[in-house]
Parts: sequence; C-alpha cells; structure tokens
Amino acid sequence: MLSSARAFDGTQRIYRHASSATGTDMTFSVFVPEHEESEQLPVVWYLSGLTCTHANVTEKGEYRAACAKHRLIFVAPDTSPRGENVPDDPDGAYDFGLGAGFYVDATQDPWAANYRMWSYVTQELPELLFANFPADPKRQSIMGHSMGGHGALTIGLSHPDRFRAVSALAPIVAPSQVPWGQKALGNYLGSDKAAWRKHDAVALIEDGARLPDLLVDQGADDQFLEQELRPELLRKACAEAGIDLTLNLRLGYDHSYYFVSTFMADHLAWHAERLT
Amino acid sequence: MLSSARAFDGTQRIYRHASSATGTDMTFSVFVPEHEESEQLPVVWYLSGLTCTHANVTEKGEYRAACAKHRLIFVAPDTSPRGENVPDDPDGAYDFGLGAGFYVDATQDPWAANYRMWSYVTQELPELLFANFPADPKRQSIMGHSMGGHGALTIGLSHPDRFRAVSALAPIVAPSQVPWGQKALGNYLGSDKAAWRKHDAVALIEDGARLPDLLVDQGADDQFLEQELRPELLRKACAEAGIDLTLNLRLGYDHSYYFVSTFMADHLAWHAERLT
Repeated sequence: MLSSARAFDGTQRIYRHASSATGTDMTFSVFVPEHEESEQLPVVWYLSGLTCTHANVTEKGEYRAACAKHRLIFVAPDTSPRGENVPDDPDGAYDFGLGAGFYVDATQDPWAANYRMWSYVTQELPELLFANFPADPKRQSIMGHSMGGHGALTIGLSHPDRFRAVSALAPIVAPSQVPWGQKALGNYLGSDKAAWRKHDAVALIEDGARLPDLLVDQGADDQFLEQELRPELLRKACAEAGIDLTLNLRLGYDHSYYFVSTFMADHLAWHAERLT
Repeated sequence: MLSSARAFDGTQRIYRHASSATGTDMTFSVFVPEHEESEQLPVVWYLSGLTCTHANVTEKGEYRAACAKHRLIFVAPDTSPRGENVPDDPDGAYDFGLGAGFYVDATQDPWAANYRMWSYVTQELPELLFANFPADPKRQSIMGHSMGGHGALTIGLSHPDRFRAVSALAPIVAPSQVPWGQKALGNYLGSDKAAWRKHDAVALIEDGARLPDLLVDQGADDQFLEQELRPELLRKACAEAGIDLTLNLRLGYDHSYYFVSTFMADHLAWHAERLT
C-alpha cells in the first residue's frame, strides 16, 4: 500500500504489486465506501486514457461522492507496464508504449514480454481484487475514458456475462480505422488485421458481440473527435446490431478531465442502476 | 488566458497577469457557472495552503458541481509571488518563501518587494475580477485550506462588511503561537510581535474583530493538527467573543485534498445560504 486516505466516508488507497501478467510492478487505486465488515459491494472498473496513470482519475475524476452515494467500489489500474526494462516508443511518442498499453496482450517483439494489459485487467487484477477487498464478483461494471473507453468497450463486449454495465467517455470506438489505433494495434498485434478485430469495439459488434445497452458521452469540442474517436461508427454498429446506445454529444466540452469529471456522476448513477 | 474548458455547464479558466502588488506575473483560476449575459453572480474566494498554486484546488477540489448548483463564481489565486527574481527560503524549505506567502504584505527585506499577498488578494485581484467578470461585489465570501484558511480567517475578520461568509478547512488559526506562523510572520513582518496580531485570527478576535459566524472543518488524523493548526485556540477565542463557530472534527481525515474535496460541497452550501 503506497497511500491511504479517508474520503467521502470511505477509503481511497493506492497499491503497488508485482504483476505476473506484465512482469513488472503495477500500481492501481481503489476507493472503498463505508460498509459493514461482512458486506460485499459492487465494483466499477475504470480504465484511463493515453498518457495517464491510475493517478489522473484518482485526483481529478470526482467519482468518490457518487461512489459513496451509490456504495460502489471504484478501481483504477495504470494504462501500461512501466519500469527500466520495459520498451517504449522509439521516438518517445505519447500514443504508444509507456502510458499507452491499449488494453491488449501484445504478440509482437519487443512488446509481447510486458505489454499484457488485457490479461492484467481481465484476469490478474480481478483475482487480486476479489481475494483482498470486499468486492462482489457477481456485480461488476466497466467504464473508461478515451483509450480506456476503448478498453472498457472491448472488454465489456468480450465478457457480457461478467459486466452488468458498460459505458465510456470520449472512447476510441474503432481503433482499426483511426491513426492512434492503427499504430498501437499494428505494433502490438502485427500487421494481420484479423487479430485486431477482437480489440475494436465496432468490429466486435459487427462480428456478433452484444450487450443490452451502452452509455457514451462525447464532448463536441473534443480535439480528437473527428480523427481518432469517431462515435458515428459506434452509433452505426449499435443501430445495425440492435444495441441500445445512449450517445450524448456534449456541446462545448473538450477531451480533458474537466469533461470526465462533469459526467462522472451521470455514468456512476447509470452503473448503479444496473448493479444494485 | 492560459486555458479555458467547459465544466459542469460553466467555464473553468486559468489566467496570468502582471501584478503591480507583487511586481511579478500572477496566475489564478476562475470558475464561472452558466448565467445570463446581464447577470452578476456571487463570488467565493478560495485561498490555498502551503506548497500549493491555483492548480491544486482547481484540479482536486471538486468545487465545480456545487458552484454550478448554487451558481457561485469560484476564484483561486496563487499562494505567493513567483519568478526568477523573487527571493525564496534560503534552505528551500516548503513552509516559507515560494508557495508560502501567508497572505501578508511583507515589511522586511528581501521579502517586502514581492511578498505582498495581502494587497494582491484584498485589492488588486478583486479590482481585476469585478472589472472583467460577471461577479457581484456585494455578494462575496471567502474560504481557504491550511495556510489559506489562515488567510481566509484573517482577511474575513478584517473585512466584515465585504464578506457575507467566512469558512476554513484545517486552518492555521493562531500563527503567532505555532512554528509555521512564527517563521513566516517573523521573516515577513519582523520580530515585533505587535505587527503579527492583524495576521493572526485568534489575536484579531482577542483584539475585537467580529463575525456573526464561522464554519471550520478539521480532520482528526491531520498530521499538523496539534503542532500547527490548534483549532482549540479558535474555539476558545470565539467562545469568549460570542462568535458562533461551527467546528467539525472529522474522524479519520487527514490534511490532504481528499479531506478538502470531501467537505467542499458542505462549505459551498453554507456560503450559498449566506450569499443568495
């Protein structure tokens, strides 16, 4: 445990542990609302975007008031492996390598050894969480921002029996079709685009993945909207698949945590309806 | 204007300007809720603590939801002058010099040239604000955290006709009696302790300053509670002066922004009752 602080009648803690999935230490934060000793609470998984660690949402996300109100545990992992021996983008770009794991298990060298964020977020960290925290594995949901929205959508679509709610803020919905995603998936997974489809929310839906509903908020003044995020592709895929997508375009909002924090309480209320 | 972002249906902006009070550039943040063009809104001044800039509360304070709800402008100045030519603590200590202006006008060299935070916060920045923002000078209140709680209390007690509400989170209430304050006031104001009294909330009350009421929240697990903050001294002074002090001791809470953000909405509701 790196830190522990009381907040909104619960406890905000930050942990570091040796991860077998990534072969590195990994850091994550957990907010646990006030609860009875015997009680298990629902869990919201929050996946962060490019350049972020666990810290951005923990400091700026403004989720604790809503999590305390709805009595939700909130878990925020890091976005990539980190460490001296972990390879990074050769040009030091922000959109690949450290801080940009894209929630996949890389198959290509030199990334395959450490960049195993899919396994970390879907297997290792859940096992650790349910073994050590008062969290109910039968009541899980997942959300994320930007690259983390991509992670939440793809992990949610791939585990429809695990997550009772899936939502995203300004997500990358079709990485196969946008520059950020093409760079990341090409490097982590190789040039065979068939392997990309299970890490692309729109492709997953085209290939038959289903959820009852989805909530997405998107800032209309988001600088990445037209080139990287392209929510219209998700709208089309959901319409054709019969997925009940609520897509809120928020006038004047950008891509920052000012946007995320504004709509966090709405998303957590939507999750709480489906978790409690 | 350094940045502008929509948040909670209002606008969070950060500005830098050349200050005549400090002889340096100064940075501050302003949140303005959605409003009619002709409308003037009440203003809450928020003063930050040691080591902080405008950014800490702007990122971690979780005030925007409550300010949007109550329709309050929220202004957060920096805590000291900054710049290449601004003298700092000779040992680089966190509790004096840069980031530690203590909201006084220094009289001692080498501090007197730049360390004029009292004039900046009580005169220059209000003039700038009311000339440029939809802020109502007849409806102002002031609050702060730690060293900024000291600033809010001393400025509030010294301007009872200006501020309709004064509150503080984990404030330094009697700087003349504690190490942080003795170092700061001794260096900025000199060794004559008579000059310290107008920058010491407890001494101001002992000398006759009055407010109808005060709200203070204090974490019981605050590491600075016993040596630096000493709320019992404020309780005694208010009791003797007939000031209606609400002093909430919050079990388990520390000195951090996890504490500040938890009780921010309570304080803003209390301010809103007195401002609207």
